[in-house]
Amino acid sequence: MNLITIAIGLGLLALVYGLVTSRQVLSASAGNEKMQEIAAAIQEGAQAYLKRQYTTIAIVGVVVAVVILATLGHISAIGFVIGAILSGVAGFIGMNISVRANVRTAAAAQKGLQQGLTLAFRAGAITGLLVAGLALLAISVFFWYLTGPGGYTVGGEDRTVVEALTALAFGASLISIFARLGGGIFTKAADVGADLVGKVEAGIPEDDPRNPAVIADNVGDNVGDCAGMAADLFETYVVTVGATMVLTALLMKGADNLMGLMSLPLLIGGACIVTSIIGTYFVRLGGGKNIMGAMYKGFLVTAILSIPAIWYMTQLALGDMNTVIGGAGPGDLAPLSGDAADLPVVSDTIGGFTGMDLFWCSMLGLVITGLIIWITEYYTGTNFRPVKSIAKASETGHGTNVIQGLAISLEATALPTLVIVAGIIIAYQLAGLIGIAYAATAMLALAGMVVALDAYGPVTDNAGGIAEMAGLDDSVREKTDALDAVGNTTKAVTKGYAIGSAGLAALVLFAAYTTDLGVFFPDLEVDFSLENPYVIVGLLLGALLPYLFGSMGMTAVGRAAGDVVKDVRDQFAADPGIMAGTSRPNYARTVDLVTKAAIKEMIVPSLLPVLAPIVVYFVISWVAGPENGFAALGALLLGVIVGGLFVALSMTSGGGAWDNAKKYIEDGHHGGKGSEAHKAAVTGDTVGDPYKDTAGPAVNPMIKITNIVALLLLAALATG
Amino acid sequence: MNLITIAIGLGLLALVYGLVTSRQVLSASAGNEKMQEIAAAIQEGAQAYLKRQYTTIAIVGVVVAVVILATLGHISAIGFVIGAILSGVAGFIGMNISVRANVRTAAAAQKGLQQGLTLAFRAGAITGLLVAGLALLAISVFFWYLTGPGGYTVGGEDRTVVEALTALAFGASLISIFARLGGGIFTKAADVGADLVGKVEAGIPEDDPRNPAVIADNVGDNVGDCAGMAADLFETYVVTVGATMVLTALLMKGADNLMGLMSLPLLIGGACIVTSIIGTYFVRLGGGKNIMGAMYKGFLVTAILSIPAIWYMTQLALGDMNTVIGGAGPGDLAPLSGDAADLPVVSDTIGGFTGMDLFWCSMLGLVITGLIIWITEYYTGTNFRPVKSIAKASETGHGTNVIQGLAISLEATALPTLVIVAGIIIAYQLAGLIGIAYAATAMLALAGMVVALDAYGPVTDNAGGIAEMAGLDDSVREKTDALDAVGNTTKAVTKGYAIGSAGLAALVLFAAYTTDLGVFFPDLEVDFSLENPYVIVGLLLGALLPYLFGSMGMTAVGRAAGDVVKDVRDQFAADPGIMAGTSRPNYARTVDLVTKAAIKEMIVPSLLPVLAPIVVYFVISWVAGPENGFAALGALLLGVIVGGLFVALSMTSGGGAWDNAKKYIEDGHHGGKGSEAHKAAVTGDTVGDPYKDTAGPAVNPMIKITNIVALLLLAALATG
Repeated sequence: MNLITIAIGLGLLALVYGLVTSRQVLSASAGNEKMQEIAAAIQEGAQAYLKRQYTTIAIVGVVVAVVILATLGHISAIGFVIGAILSGVAGFIGMNISVRANVRTAAAAQKGLQQGLTLAFRAGAITGLLVAGLALLAISVFFWYLTGPGGYTVGGEDRTVVEALTALAFGASLISIFARLGGGIFTKAADVGADLVGKVEAGIPEDDPRNPAVIADNVGDNVGDCAGMAADLFETYVVTVGATMVLTALLMKGADNLMGLMSLPLLIGGACIVTSIIGTYFVRLGGGKNIMGAMYKGFLVTAILSIPAIWYMTQLALGDMNTVIGGAGPGDLAPLSGDAADLPVVSDTIGGFTGMDLFWCSMLGLVITGLIIWITEYYTGTNFRPVKSIAKASETGHGTNVIQGLAISLEATALPTLVIVAGIIIAYQLAGLIGIAYAATAMLALAGMVVALDAYGPVTDNAGGIAEMAGLDDSVREKTDALDAVGNTTKAVTKGYAIGSAGLAALVLFAAYTTDLGVFFPDLEVDFSLENPYVIVGLLLGALLPYLFGSMGMTAVGRAAGDVVKDVRDQFAADPGIMAGTSRPNYARTVDLVTKAAIKEMIVPSLLPVLAPIVVYFVISWVAGPENGFAALGALLLGVIVGGLFVALSMTSGGGAWDNAKKYIEDGHHGGKGSEAHKAAVTGDTVGDPYKDTAGPAVNPMIKITNIVALLLLAALATG
Repeated sequence: MNLITIAIGLGLLALVYGLVTSRQVLSASAGNEKMQEIAAAIQEGAQAYLKRQYTTIAIVGVVVAVVILATLGHISAIGFVIGAILSGVAGFIGMNISVRANVRTAAAAQKGLQQGLTLAFRAGAITGLLVAGLALLAISVFFWYLTGPGGYTVGGEDRTVVEALTALAFGASLISIFARLGGGIFTKAADVGADLVGKVEAGIPEDDPRNPAVIADNVGDNVGDCAGMAADLFETYVVTVGATMVLTALLMKGADNLMGLMSLPLLIGGACIVTSIIGTYFVRLGGGKNIMGAMYKGFLVTAILSIPAIWYMTQLALGDMNTVIGGAGPGDLAPLSGDAADLPVVSDTIGGFTGMDLFWCSMLGLVITGLIIWITEYYTGTNFRPVKSIAKASETGHGTNVIQGLAISLEATALPTLVIVAGIIIAYQLAGLIGIAYAATAMLALAGMVVALDAYGPVTDNAGGIAEMAGLDDSVREKTDALDAVGNTTKAVTKGYAIGSAGLAALVLFAAYTTDLGVFFPDLEVDFSLENPYVIVGLLLGALLPYLFGSMGMTAVGRAAGDVVKDVRDQFAADPGIMAGTSRPNYARTVDLVTKAAIKEMIVPSLLPVLAPIVVYFVISWVAGPENGFAALGALLLGVIVGGLFVALSMTSGGGAWDNAKKYIEDGHHGGKGSEAHKAAVTGDTVGDPYKDTAGPAVNPMIKITNIVALLLLAALATG
């Protein structure tokens, strides 16, 4: 049986799981009429937003598709379109499941915690497995078509397959940065605005139906935390697996079993779809009420089962685990014969590598994923020093809460960076650049399970809101709150995981860039040494991008939240019946306002990573020649990672910690709800909102776009 | 006349200016008895703190001196000790002037705004010119001794002079990081603590004498903003000028006029001392009350006069402005004959350079300084969008104030980075690496004037406090407030200037590192290319350092401020007479408490940049061989700059903007003092405090220490 068809089959299995589980979720009770009415309003708002967002993105997408068609040909243009559409589909499906599961989770929580957990987690698992499945299918079907019916070959001079895969990744990334940022601005503008004018000014609780922004807030959970996140992880999966295949094609051109090697990342992805599906059935509360423990059980089962599964797939693809396949050290980029004996050994430590080496690199990816989850829980969980220190600092006021939160957000970059650095070193020692690529691929292979944990969050968040608005018994809200607190940590986990894998994937993309450069411009001597000042220039400009991008995202949220505040104040002033509870606020007006603001604000920052590489290349080439233009561009790619990794890690962890510090106080510590410490913690939470849900997570697709645009620019310059 | 003796003479001129102006300042009226009593308490506290700080630093200094003596010999150890002691002296003198000028400024402000400005600015100018003069004397006298009576030569195989200059810079940097950080923790812990418990809890105004932390707050201005800043700028001057000389010695080994070339940075520094002295006399209010305009007048006169002065000195040192001196492009590091015709031309754009090229690079340094001042004023001045946007965001609460402040702090990195990048490109095109060194040197040559503008700030800040505590007429406080608002911007300017110059100076130090590596280990092939994963590892670890360092600084302030809050609460509880105004609080107890906390907290973060290069080198060498150890170490040096530049710029600008947004509201905008917007702005100001005065500015010496330790490690490894 053809290796690629196995991957396709396993991808389809994920879709089947999604379909079957969807029917289970949808068949659950949707609660009473009031609940259904509220849920319908959320659903309507979310669909209206996504429709407008995708319309806007489509315009940008068509322009870019035409540019790609003109410069790189129709196969690449098709790849771009497939990536773009499926990225949108992943977000769309995730959102649609989420807006139906929320009310059902609220209904299920009436029966018990386990019932609520099961429903919410199943909804998350649908999104998770559809993201992984669609991503795997996108690459594997496209790759199957190109190398089968399409008749293109890999390993020779024909670059069609490599460029088509890159264009596919670009399509996924471009849509996902819009979705992440637009959704992120929507959700946090609504959240911050609703809190400011509701909790702070009017003194009504969160999710109070008298607040005109309350539906917008709940819509935001679905379009930002669910649809945006799903598009982002789809992108991360496609780019990582795609980049691994592209790098393999570039570095191992002459290997005997090139097709097997290129299929291996797809097979690893497929295997982990099976283990993820099995893992979802282990997410159950034990005797106690340890929800996080239930989640971990599922993840651990998936991770442990993935060990033999990956081993099996590696053997299947390569035939033999111990034959040396090829050298992949630096400088060793020439076509390889595939005969181990002839291989040039580049350094003492890195010569060729074996299937076993690739297996160990994949294991490394699993370990990195586990460590990042563990570190993220430490920094954002309510049981540990960081969150407790922020809660304690809240006692002395708003200022000290924010200072401590910022200190934690800076500190939270350290351990993940050390893990990534250790991962780079070990993977490189095992199998050179290809080893790093496999570590990243194995990380992403677990995406089905990790996204499941994350997508669970907005469902429970919404369920709590619906319970509140529908006036359900307090015990229901208590259960959804318990489920939601865990959601804060799992949401932070996915972001750390995505940015961590981006750190590795970007190195793979950079390697593809330098390799391509040698292929396209063999006569150009590009000096990537740190001694070349244009490399420093590129590093500085690259590191600047996430700062500028983060600033734009934060400003956008502040501006849009201000609009929400004004709108709600106007509604309160125009109709005193709203606060009295006798008339219904105009929810749709607020949703519409946030929609327009989010769409408007997402455009400029999203184009920053698309245009920056092009501008930097042309400006530096004009000043100091194309060899320095390419050097600065390459350095820009690494600068974006070096800068972006820290910006993203600090924002996502810090934001999660602030959020849970507030929850910790609400659980009765430091004076509990309503105390001065609580007010300070609400401020911290508000500050953390755009940090963790707008600016921080969007840095991940931003890094990838910058890298992919550089690759496509190279190809365009070479053919143009 | 010997060129170095001219530099020594001009350095002495700065000391004479300092002496003469000190007598003028001290002869002014010190106000009434109450004012003198308060000033004495501040003076006593500041001296007690500095004494304890220097005692602690001395212990670390002696240990390091012994290590240097053992590894690099007695000449380097002497250099280290001179640098360390003079860095301490610079801070000590600055503080002593400041604690005497504060009360005299308050007294002068009773007469008029011009009188207050003159006194405060003169006090700042004394500190400024003593910092520049001492720094110039430290290098020029040491260099004179080494190359004269010491009998060491430059340009040959003897490395004594190069290593001694590096050790001198290390001494200055090591002391300055302790002073910056210790002083920064002291000043902000006292400030934040006093605000939290006074303004927020007890509802008494800033600088109210009933607040037991009020003297500590005023002591902080002197030990942090004055002594710490002076030590920092002394360090920046010594490192920049020293690194330029070292790089010249390494790259131009065989040049005919090597002594002239090496003396030129000293002469440029000397020339600008003269222009700075002249400039100080132009700081006068015109018809209006534009205090910032008066400051700019002084700076502009200095900058414009420096143009012919630098031209004259360049001609004096090199004899002829148009003879090609030597190639300094990448890879062109071999000894040069000094004969232009024989020079290898490295690239189309960079071959040898002329005196005229160096002159233009120096002009570039002046332009960069001007642009950074202009950008900093834009981001921190009350007349422009950034500060106004934070003030406006305060209307909707604490959360939106902080969000907008963070957005501005991220954004504020963009323009300075673009200026530095443009500076690197232009200087490199003109004269290669040496060109970058000269741009940095010319920036620092203006230090006398720039530090004068900065050191003026704490004097006026204290003057306001004394006016408040001594119960002077409100009109006096109004004048000192007007003077102080400008101080916020000038303080931010110096930090932007220091970190901007650090960006250039660090490139010079990195070049010295790579050159040294070639000299010490000629057989080792170190691959600094971005394609080497150990380079990426180094970049990531380097970029991590400022984050970790910033986190420690922020946490330290939060913790120490918490201690202050508790102490003040205890004092209020133990003696109700304090709040009633009938008994005097125990100011000394609070000062003592902050002193102990600051000293304790400064140790670990300050050692981070000393130990990190050593650990990284040994760990990576152990894993992947010394060639990769050196590669990772080199990349670490650049990673520290790339990461640190953004952390420092965002923190210092953001903090300044928050501070002035509060002042803008206090001037009557958005509801004025006591409004909800004002409360939110106070929170922002509190958050900005450790950003701008503790963590942010200390990144500058941190970057330099990392680089210098790497240079000394190289030398130690080579000889050991």
